[in-house]
Amino acid sequence: MAKTNPGRFFEDYTVGEVIDHAVPRTISGGERALYHALYPMRHALYSSDEFARDCGLSAAPIDDLAAFHIVFGKTVPDVSLNAVANLGYAEGRWLKPVWQGDTIRSQSEVIGVKQNSNGRTGVVYVRSRGLNQRDEVVMEYARWVMLRKRDMDAPAPETVIPELKKSLEPSDLVIPDGLDFSSYDFTLAGEKHRLSHYEVGETIDHVDGVTIEEAEHMMATRLWQNTSKVHFDITARPDQRLIYGGHVISMARALSFNGLANAQIIAGLNGGAHANPCLAGNTIKAWSEVLDKAETAAPGVGAIRLRLVATKGGAPFELKGPDGKYLPDVLLDLDYWALMPV
Amino acid sequence: MAKTNPGRFFEDYTVGEVIDHAVPRTISGGERALYHALYPMRHALYSSDEFARDCGLSAAPIDDLAAFHIVFGKTVPDVSLNAVANLGYAEGRWLKPVWQGDTIRSQSEVIGVKQNSNGRTGVVYVRSRGLNQRDEVVMEYARWVMLRKRDMDAPAPETVIPELKKSLEPSDLVIPDGLDFSSYDFTLAGEKHRLSHYEVGETIDHVDGVTIEEAEHMMATRLWQNTSKVHFDITARPDQRLIYGGHVISMARALSFNGLANAQIIAGLNGGAHANPCLAGNTIKAWSEVLDKAETAAPGVGAIRLRLVATKGGAPFELKGPDGKYLPDVLLDLDYWALMPV
Amino acid sequence: MAKTNPGRFFEDYTVGEVIDHAVPRTISGGERALYHALYPMRHALYSSDEFARDCGLSAAPIDDLAAFHIVFGKTVPDVSLNAVANLGYAEGRWLKPVWQGDTIRSQSEVIGVKQNSNGRTGVVYVRSRGLNQRDEVVMEYARWVMLRKRDMDAPAPETVIPELKKSLEPSDLVIPDGLDFSSYDFTLAGEKHRLSHYEVGETIDHVDGVTIEEAEHMMATRLWQNTSKVHFDITARPDQRLIYGGHVISMARALSFNGLANAQIIAGLNGGAHANPCLAGNTIKAWSEVLDKAETAAPGVGAIRLRLVATKGGAPFELKGPDGKYLPDVLLDLDYWALMPV
Repeated sequence: MAKTNPGRFFEDYTVGEVIDHAVPRTISGGERALYHALYPMRHALYSSDEFARDCGLSAAPIDDLAAFHIVFGKTVPDVSLNAVANLGYAEGRWLKPVWQGDTIRSQSEVIGVKQNSNGRTGVVYVRSRGLNQRDEVVMEYARWVMLRKRDMDAPAPETVIPELKKSLEPSDLVIPDGLDFSSYDFTLAGEKHRLSHYEVGETIDHVDGVTIEEAEHMMATRLWQNTSKVHFDITARPDQRLIYGGHVISMARALSFNGLANAQIIAGLNGGAHANPCLAGNTIKAWSEVLDKAETAAPGVGAIRLRLVATKGGAPFELKGPDGKYLPDVLLDLDYWALMPV
Repeated sequence: MAKTNPGRFFEDYTVGEVIDHAVPRTISGGERALYHALYPMRHALYSSDEFARDCGLSAAPIDDLAAFHIVFGKTVPDVSLNAVANLGYAEGRWLKPVWQGDTIRSQSEVIGVKQNSNGRTGVVYVRSRGLNQRDEVVMEYARWVMLRKRDMDAPAPETVIPELKKSLEPSDLVIPDGLDFSSYDFTLAGEKHRLSHYEVGETIDHVDGVTIEEAEHMMATRLWQNTSKVHFDITARPDQRLIYGGHVISMARALSFNGLANAQIIAGLNGGAHANPCLAGNTIKAWSEVLDKAETAAPGVGAIRLRLVATKGGAPFELKGPDGKYLPDVLLDLDYWALMPV
Repeated sequence: MAKTNPGRFFEDYTVGEVIDHAVPRTISGGERALYHALYPMRHALYSSDEFARDCGLSAAPIDDLAAFHIVFGKTVPDVSLNAVANLGYAEGRWLKPVWQGDTIRSQSEVIGVKQNSNGRTGVVYVRSRGLNQRDEVVMEYARWVMLRKRDMDAPAPETVIPELKKSLEPSDLVIPDGLDFSSYDFTLAGEKHRLSHYEVGETIDHVDGVTIEEAEHMMATRLWQNTSKVHFDITARPDQRLIYGGHVISMARALSFNGLANAQIIAGLNGGAHANPCLAGNTIKAWSEVLDKAETAAPGVGAIRLRLVATKGGAPFELKGPDGKYLPDVLLDLDYWALMPV
């Protein structure tokens, strides 16, 4: 039998199974510097230990999306190596900051399975979590993917579809211990807009754009130890390498600094769709829509719910066509909660 | 009103104003490793903690030009986002080494304004400085840029043109505390040439070349949190992305190791011109001319004033045409002071 | 006389001479993060401090091949700047792990010279070693290169051909102090295959592929301060930049994780041939053959001797044609010893 990992197929998942994913990773300043070289990140809380201390933290944590990518990457060999499609995310929560020196590993629990009516594919739902060296859960999220069956004659499992929230409630969000925005420095943060300046329904065109290069998306994706062949091997698909959807998420989040500089911390991921494939040569731009606002118990800290849309062309604020489908230039439609000074 | 940063226009600057720039940054070994991956840096004092200790320092500092880029990048959103041209630098001085663990922020004082006779643009002079977490100035430089007016009918301000030295005097240079080249290891440094081996007027062809890639110049420019659109967004200019002038400076400085390996520390920037745009695909080569030599008070430490020229073709040592203009293959003409064993 | 380094020619080497190479380097988490961004590295012992501690080490060392590249890169200006060909490696041994914070320098002893019958070139054999800041040898290897003569009339030196082992014996391998695989975590390591699961003669197709980019191989090669012009300057060769052979070695080793995840530590390099040039755009794949197996004195630690072949096309397990020459799609044929749980 081959010693290489063939990946799992639909019938290999059982509801309740817990998968411990391989290759823990210790984080250093190197990961942070690379994250800032690969994306135009400027959120001050993640760039400056001093700024983070002035907000009540012990140092600047690793970017929340870098933490997500680290956790996500480890799940790929066990969850999505044979995925036909990455269908959705829900209930993503950042529970503890990830610090330099932390070692992160990942674990997934199978929380749902549903064979498709074609009998050849099925949907698997997992709840994945990242744990640090103290076995504290640093983040968690639900994700569902469509997988091929290995054996078309394998019987359909009992359908289990987990109940997943359309959106996290503000009370679901976990605020980092000690976070205090009451003496927040808006000048050093780069913008003067606080939560009260944003209106629900408001849209923001983030203006800036970045043209994507093969070398950059591969370095990013490799750094997270994501092993999906289509991102690296030009012979694995008919045309170009497909860019890891997380690369688009991070790029759009970084671009959103221009207009949302004070949406410092990502605390919750409500949902997300990779609307169209992203390829090298695309120029990514981004726009946001304010979906909700809320208070939190931490001093000076509010929560803002945002839709973040990444595009590779077209006008800002256009999302779907008359048929209800994403327009062809839309790459990403992400729904998340961020923490911002009130 | 849009929440994104539209940048400042000529009439937005008042002489005497001090601008605190956003997004401080904490430096780690990650920034250093990236700097050495992006440029063929080999100066031993910045590569080896042990070598730096043998020269009287506590560890290897961050490269002087990396420190410059960090300080410079932060000024872009407030100074040069709408710049038509980056006209010049003067009086650049490195005042304190930047160490791993330091957090750097930037500040600029407007020191001059002059509306152009066309009434549509003007020149703004700033003195920018980088400060560490102890509020010590780590470096400073004057820079002047040409900016558009927002409102063509805005009245011209009173012209103020600062007095800037054509070149720093050796006595203006600040030697890092404790620097001592009296037991300098020429073998580990890579060349045997000391200050007394160089003659004023001598020229050095640095021989090596590097062909520039889009991914690399974007990673470098992003790492310094420079937000100028033309470096990243292929749709922002008619042809290719324009490469950040600082990328050319760092590349040329790194190439100058071959012949100037012992010009370890950049202590002063007398002036500099980005003679022609640099684009991906260009092959950068460099040559130097010795402009001056001086003693310093530190044991075994001398100063060498160098012209550093980067080219994308043509023969070394050719700089300007009969019309007094830079030849089309010249990218950079930089005038700086470096510290070298006597 | 030019101050730049012209490199050495065949007649500049004398058997017994020891060359101290320039530019020591202090390693941080930055180098590790870059190594993991440039190659799809997943070996847990080098990714996680916690995993390394569970194997008896104090932390995750720098990847063995990164240590090799650091040592090798420093030798280039003195050994192979004028090389016509890199002919072979032998007797490579990793003697001490390299840790973050270590400063590495390199030294080579000339151990053989042989002028070729054409009178215009010759072969130089060196034994290179890397030393840390405590003057401990961290690794060593023999290498031989073909060099041009500067002066065709220079007399041929007495021929000295060193005796080099075709392959290291298991007893030649040095096991890192404290290494203990007796409570090895196969789940976190990513595969369940231990030494006893591999048969001598067994071949493994590592399945995954990576398409190579110019920016990546240049960043890697620069990080190791390798100054060979052909890797960086498109004008130095008739066609494309030639990719550093070490880039292919690291890429193939990283790809070999899939099937050899538990071949954690490279302990010996028996030999290696760069069979054909690698250029940007090539898609590298890899296969391995088990050549030998052995016990070691360390608890739970065995040794596996592997042939690692990198290709840019063609079928796995094809190496040479009927003429005994490497097939045109073979890039690398490497013979090494790795340490693996028994």
